[in-house]
Amino acid sequence: MRTDGREYNQLREIEITRNYTKYAEGSVLIETGDTMVLCNVSIEDSVPYFLRGQNKGWLTAEYSLLPRATQSRNIREAAKRKLSGRTQEIQRLIGRSLRAIIDLEKIGERTIWVDCDVLQADGGTRTAAITGAFVALVDGINFLLAEGKIEENPLKGYMAATSVGLVKGEALLDLCYEEDSQAQVDMNIVMTEAGKIIEIQGTAEENPFSREELDQMYELAEKGILGLIEEQKLVLGGE
Amino acid sequence: MRTDGREYNQLREIEITRNYTKYAEGSVLIETGDTMVLCNVSIEDSVPYFLRGQNKGWLTAEYSLLPRATQSRNIREAAKRKLSGRTQEIQRLIGRSLRAIIDLEKIGERTIWVDCDVLQADGGTRTAAITGAFVALVDGINFLLAEGKIEENPLKGYMAATSVGLVKGEALLDLCYEEDSQAQVDMNIVMTEAGKIIEIQGTAEENPFSREELDQMYELAEKGILGLIEEQKLVLGGE
Amino acid sequence: MRTDGREYNQLREIEITRNYTKYAEGSVLIETGDTMVLCNVSIEDSVPYFLRGQNKGWLTAEYSLLPRATQSRNIREAAKRKLSGRTQEIQRLIGRSLRAIIDLEKIGERTIWVDCDVLQADGGTRTAAITGAFVALVDGINFLLAEGKIEENPLKGYMAATSVGLVKGEALLDLCYEEDSQAQVDMNIVMTEAGKIIEIQGTAEENPFSREELDQMYELAEKGILGLIEEQKLVLGGE
Amino acid sequence: MRTDGREYNQLREIEITRNYTKYAEGSVLIETGDTMVLCNVSIEDSVPYFLRGQNKGWLTAEYSLLPRATQSRNIREAAKRKLSGRTQEIQRLIGRSLRAIIDLEKIGERTIWVDCDVLQADGGTRTAAITGAFVALVDGINFLLAEGKIEENPLKGYMAATSVGLVKGEALLDLCYEEDSQAQVDMNIVMTEAGKIIEIQGTAEENPFSREELDQMYELAEKGILGLIEEQKLVLGGE
Amino acid sequence: MRTDGREYNQLREIEITRNYTKYAEGSVLIETGDTMVLCNVSIEDSVPYFLRGQNKGWLTAEYSLLPRATQSRNIREAAKRKLSGRTQEIQRLIGRSLRAIIDLEKIGERTIWVDCDVLQADGGTRTAAITGAFVALVDGINFLLAEGKIEENPLKGYMAATSVGLVKGEALLDLCYEEDSQAQVDMNIVMTEAGKIIEIQGTAEENPFSREELDQMYELAEKGILGLIEEQKLVLGGE
Amino acid sequence: MRTDGREYNQLREIEITRNYTKYAEGSVLIETGDTMVLCNVSIEDSVPYFLRGQNKGWLTAEYSLLPRATQSRNIREAAKRKLSGRTQEIQRLIGRSLRAIIDLEKIGERTIWVDCDVLQADGGTRTAAITGAFVALVDGINFLLAEGKIEENPLKGYMAATSVGLVKGEALLDLCYEEDSQAQVDMNIVMTEAGKIIEIQGTAEENPFSREELDQMYELAEKGILGLIEEQKLVLGGE
Repeated sequence: MRTDGREYNQLREIEITRNYTKYAEGSVLIETGDTMVLCNVSIEDSVPYFLRGQNKGWLTAEYSLLPRATQSRNIREAAKRKLSGRTQEIQRLIGRSLRAIIDLEKIGERTIWVDCDVLQADGGTRTAAITGAFVALVDGINFLLAEGKIEENPLKGYMAATSVGLVKGEALLDLCYEEDSQAQVDMNIVMTEAGKIIEIQGTAEENPFSREELDQMYELAEKGILGLIEEQKLVLGGE
Repeated sequence: MRTDGREYNQLREIEITRNYTKYAEGSVLIETGDTMVLCNVSIEDSVPYFLRGQNKGWLTAEYSLLPRATQSRNIREAAKRKLSGRTQEIQRLIGRSLRAIIDLEKIGERTIWVDCDVLQADGGTRTAAITGAFVALVDGINFLLAEGKIEENPLKGYMAATSVGLVKGEALLDLCYEEDSQAQVDMNIVMTEAGKIIEIQGTAEENPFSREELDQMYELAEKGILGLIEEQKLVLGGE
Repeated sequence: MRTDGREYNQLREIEITRNYTKYAEGSVLIETGDTMVLCNVSIEDSVPYFLRGQNKGWLTAEYSLLPRATQSRNIREAAKRKLSGRTQEIQRLIGRSLRAIIDLEKIGERTIWVDCDVLQADGGTRTAAITGAFVALVDGINFLLAEGKIEENPLKGYMAATSVGLVKGEALLDLCYEEDSQAQVDMNIVMTEAGKIIEIQGTAEENPFSREELDQMYELAEKGILGLIEEQKLVLGGE
Repeated sequence: MRTDGREYNQLREIEITRNYTKYAEGSVLIETGDTMVLCNVSIEDSVPYFLRGQNKGWLTAEYSLLPRATQSRNIREAAKRKLSGRTQEIQRLIGRSLRAIIDLEKIGERTIWVDCDVLQADGGTRTAAITGAFVALVDGINFLLAEGKIEENPLKGYMAATSVGLVKGEALLDLCYEEDSQAQVDMNIVMTEAGKIIEIQGTAEENPFSREELDQMYELAEKGILGLIEEQKLVLGGE
Repeated sequence: MRTDGREYNQLREIEITRNYTKYAEGSVLIETGDTMVLCNVSIEDSVPYFLRGQNKGWLTAEYSLLPRATQSRNIREAAKRKLSGRTQEIQRLIGRSLRAIIDLEKIGERTIWVDCDVLQADGGTRTAAITGAFVALVDGINFLLAEGKIEENPLKGYMAATSVGLVKGEALLDLCYEEDSQAQVDMNIVMTEAGKIIEIQGTAEENPFSREELDQMYELAEKGILGLIEEQKLVLGGE
Repeated sequence: MRTDGREYNQLREIEITRNYTKYAEGSVLIETGDTMVLCNVSIEDSVPYFLRGQNKGWLTAEYSLLPRATQSRNIREAAKRKLSGRTQEIQRLIGRSLRAIIDLEKIGERTIWVDCDVLQADGGTRTAAITGAFVALVDGINFLLAEGKIEENPLKGYMAATSVGLVKGEALLDLCYEEDSQAQVDMNIVMTEAGKIIEIQGTAEENPFSREELDQMYELAEKGILGLIEEQKLVLGGE
C-alpha cells in the first residue's frame, strides 16, 4: 500500500485549468496530487540571433521553483545570481521534449517561450511541467492559427511525461515527494500518444538496477502517459 | 467615468484566500481586480549574522514578477543574474512596512521571510503585496503562538496599503494598469488602522504637483486603506 | 538645541564649487556641512537602444559612496559585484527628479549622465546630490548651448532637495548623520522654485506618524528648499 | 560502413595513461579515438558544510572543455562568468555515476574531487570522462590505502560508460563527432561490470524512437561497456 | 620642449593635502599636475581568514577611477559587475609596493585598507596613488602609535613611485596623459629613499627597447623619486 | 647547488611538441622541467567591435591553470565566476608581448586567439606560455600563408621569455616552484632575438633590491632567452 493509498500503477488525481492568467497566449495550471505548476506560453515575433533569416522558429523553456513551493524555503536563484544545475537540467529537458513534438519550420520566425513556475512541489514537478506545458502550447498554437499568423498546425500529435521509480524493490508509477525521497531508482519518461520515446532518463541513487527492472518501470510509465494524454484531450475538448 | 466603471474613490474587487499553498507557515493569495499576488510567510529559527545573540528577530521581504505576469513577457531576474532597481525598491518597501507593525523583540531569534510573487500584474502590485502579506504574517504569527514558540502576540495592529494617483488632473483611488500608465503622479501609502502613516511615496512623472493635490490624494488613500483593513478583518474572522 | 547648535529650521552651511574637475561638461562639488558630493555631468551624443530614432534625449544618474566616505569603511560595490538596494533606490531617485525639470525633447538624441560620488557622508547625501547635480546640469546645458548643439534651453526652472525628520518628537530640517541615526521618521522632498512637489518620500522607522507631523515636516522642507535654490542662483550668477 | 571504417558494434581505439600529471592523487589521460580527456582525482581531508560530523565522505565532479578542444573555438566559461547548462548536466552525471560505485561511508570525512578537462573533443567526451575518471579514482583510493588513511577499499566494482545512437535508422556504438551530429537519437549508458545500470539517458533529437530501438541500443552499449572494463583492468594490472 | 613646457627630467607640480576627509585614519589628496588621487587609509582590527592567529597584520589596496576622471566617461566597474584587468593589476601593484616598506609583524592582527580613488586622470595615476598612499599610511601608523595600539613604528623608511617613458626616442620623466598616449615605452618604478628597487615594470607598446634605453629611463626615475620623497618629507613635517 | 642540480645560469630541460591537438591552427605543448603548458592558436575571421573597418587585426590571449596543475587543487575560475587578478595580469602580459612581435596591419580583419592552459605548474608558467605560444603563433601564421589568406609574413622575428630571481642573495635563471617560493625578487623578461626588451617586470617580495642585482638578473635572463630561441628554431626546422 502506498503512502496515499494508491495502487502501484495508479496516477495521482490530475487537474488541468486552461486560461489561468489573462496575458499569456497559453496559460495552464496543472495540479497532479499536491504538485502545482503554472505553465505559460508566450509568443514573440522574432528568433534568437543564430536563427535569423532561416525562416523557422524556436522554442525554449524556463523552469523555477517559488521559494516556498518546497517543505523548507529555498533561496531564489535571482538572489543567488546563478541557476542551479538542477534548474538548468530541467529547463533543457522541457524545451527539448516540446521541440520534438512541433515542426518549427511551420511557425515562421517566432520564438515560443514556455515558462513553468512551480507553486507547490510534491514530486514529479518536471514531468507535470511537460504535461501541462503541452496543453498551454496547444492554446498558443491555436492563438496563432486564430490570428491568421500561421496556416498549418505545426504540432505532430499529443505527448506527456511521468515519473516512475523503484521503492523498496517495487516499481511505482507517479511518485510523490515522500516516495521519491526513498526511491533507489528515479526515472522520467516523455512519450508520444503513439508510444514513441522522446526522452528516457533513469538514475540509480545508490544501487544500480537490472534490465528487468528497467522494463517494469518502462511499462508502468507507458500506461501512465496514455492516461495523462486522455486527460489532456478531455480538457482540450477533443481538439 | 473610469475605464472599469468605478467611482474615483472606489477600490477594485478584493479577494483574499488563506492557506493557498500547504507548506508555508502563512500563505495568502490576494486578488485586487486582475492583480494576483501569492504572499508566503516562512519562519526560520535563526537570524542573520549581524543580529545573533541579541535575542530579537528579523523580518525580510522578497518580491518577484513571474515572466508572464505582465502584458509582454519580462525576462527572469535569475536569467539576467541581477535584481532590477524596481524589484529591490519594492522588496525594501514591503519589508520596511511590515517591520513597522511588528515588535521583533517578541519573536525571539527567528527570521520571518515574506515572499511576494506576482502571478498577474494589473497595477498596484506592491500595495497588494503589502496588504496580502499582512494577512499571511498574521497566520505565521498564529502558527508560532499555537506551537508555543512565542507567548505574546508581537503584532501592533492592522495595516494595509494602496495606490492613488492624478490622472488627467483628477485624483483616483487604486489605479489599474491602464490608469497607472497615464498618471501624472503616482503615490503609494502604507497606513495603520489608526490612520498613522508608515510610508508615503509620491512621484511626479513629468508635471510636479501642488500641496492641494497631495492632500486630495492623501484623503482618498486613507479611506481606501480603511476599506482594505475591513476586508482583512473579515477574512481573518475577527482575529 | 541641535548637536551642531542649529535652529530646528536651519540648513547647514552650504558651499557649491563649479568646474571642480576639468573633463566633465558640468562638474560641481557640493558641501552641506561635512557632506561632500562630487556631481559630474557628461553628455554623450547617442541614446539607449529603446529611444533611438525618436528624436529625444535621455538622462540617467549613478550614485556611489567612496569606501571611506563613511565612519567605518564600506565595501566597494564593484568588489561585491552588485549594487545594493540603497544605491539603486538613490540613483533612481536622482534620475527621476532631474528628468522632471528638463524637457528631453529639446536636447536631441543625447544622453546626459549624472554621476554623484560621495567623498564624505554626514547625512543627506541623496538630497545634496540632487541639489548639486542640478547646478552641474545647468553647466552641461550651457555647454550644449555655447557649442550650438541645441538652441533652446530645455530646463523648466530651478529645483533642489532636502531632508527633514522627526527626532525625539520634534521636526528638524536638514539632518546630519548623528540626528538621522536617531530619527523616528526620515523624509526627503524634491521641489521646484514654484513650490511644486517632484518627489516626496517619508518613512517611519518604528513609530508611524500622524498627518499633523507630515504637515510640519513638509513646511520645514519647503522653506529649506527655497534657501537652497537661492544658493544655486548665487553660484550660477543669476543664470 | 562508418566514416572511420568501424563495424556498427565496434569501439574506437582506446588508450589510458596513468600518472599523467604529478601532483594529483590519481591522474589519467584517456583517449578514445581522437577524444582526449584528462581526469584528475584530488583528495581533500574535509567535507562540505552539510556533511560535517557525519563520519562520511563526498565525491564531486567538474567538467570543462578547453577553448580549442572543439572544431571552432568555444568561449571559456570563466570569461562568461557562468557555467552552461550542458556543463552542469555533464558534471552532475559524472559525479552521480561515480558516487554509485563507491561506499562514501568508508572514506571518512574526505572529499574526492574529480576534474575532467577535455583537451580534444571528437564525440563521447562525457562517457570517456566517466571511464577514465574511474581509473583515476582507483589510483586515488590506492593512495589512501597505501598511506594508511583508510583500511578498507570502498569501491564496489568496476564501471564504465559509452554512448550509442541511431544514425540513418541504424544503431551504432561509440559515436564520433561526425556521427553524433547526424544522430536521430543519442543515448549514454553507465553500467557496472555485473551489467547493472547506473544511468541511462536517451534523447530523440527530432524523431521519437520505439522500444525496439531502445533495446537494440541497450544491447550495443552493454557489449561496449564490457570491452571498456577489460581495458581498465588491463591498465590497472588486474587490480 | 614638452607639451607643458617642462624639461625632460622635470616632475610636474605636486601638491599633497593631508586630512582631506575626516573619517579615515589617514586621508591624503595628491595632485601631480592635473592628476588628482584621493588616498584613504582605513585600519580594521582583524585580519583575513588565512592570517588569523599568526600575530601579524595585512595591507591591501583598492584602486578606482571615478567615471568622469577621464576625457570621455568610463563605465563604473560596479555597473559592469567586474573589475577590469587594468584595475586589478594596479591595485595589486599598490598593495605589493606598500607591503614592501612595512613590517607587518609589528602591527598586530590588523588590516590596513588603502583606497586610491582617482578624481581626475592626466597620466601617472598609479604612481601618484603609491606616492600619496605612502603619506596616508604614515598618518595611519601615527594614529596607531598615538592611540597606543602599537608601540614601535613598523615603517622601514620612505618610498615613492614615478613613471618614465620613451617618447619620439627621448626618455622623459613623469608623463602626462598626452605624452603617455604617444609613448613607445611606458615604465613605472617604485623605489625607497635608499635607492633600492621595490618594483620595476617596463612595457614596449610596439617597438622593443634596448638596454641603454632602459638605463636612461632608470636614471630619470631615480632622480624623480628622490624629488617626490623630499616633497613627502616636507608635508609630513620631517616625521 | 640548486635543488635540481642545475647551475645558476642553466635552463631546465625544454621540450616543444607541435600539432599537439588537431583542430587549432597552431597547437603546441611546451614542457620546461615539470611545467607543462598547452598553447593553442585559433584564427577567427573578424575583429572586435572597436576595430571594425580599420583593415587591421587583433591578437588576444587567455591563460588558465587546470584545477590540479598545482600542488593542492585550486578552484576553477568558472566556478568562482570571476577571474583572479593574477590570471588577468598574466593574460594581459602574454597578449601584449605577442602583439609586440607581429604587425597586425598585415593580417587583415582577423582575431588571433592565444589560449594557454597550464596542465602542470612547476614555476615559470607565464614565461613558458609566451615561449610556447610564439611557436604556435608561427604555425597559425603559416596556416594563413598556406591558405593564401595573407601574402606577407607579419612576424617581426623570434622572441621568448624566462624568469630570473634572487634566492638567498644569488641570482638564478629559470626558477622552479621550490626556488620561486623562496625568492626575494622575482623577475620576468620577454625579449627578441636581437636582445631588445619587450617587457621587464621585477618585484621585491620583501627586500628591495639594488641596481647591481637588477643588472645581474638581466644578464642571466638575456642568456637564457637566447637559448630558448635556439630551441624554438630547432623545432620549427629553421623556419
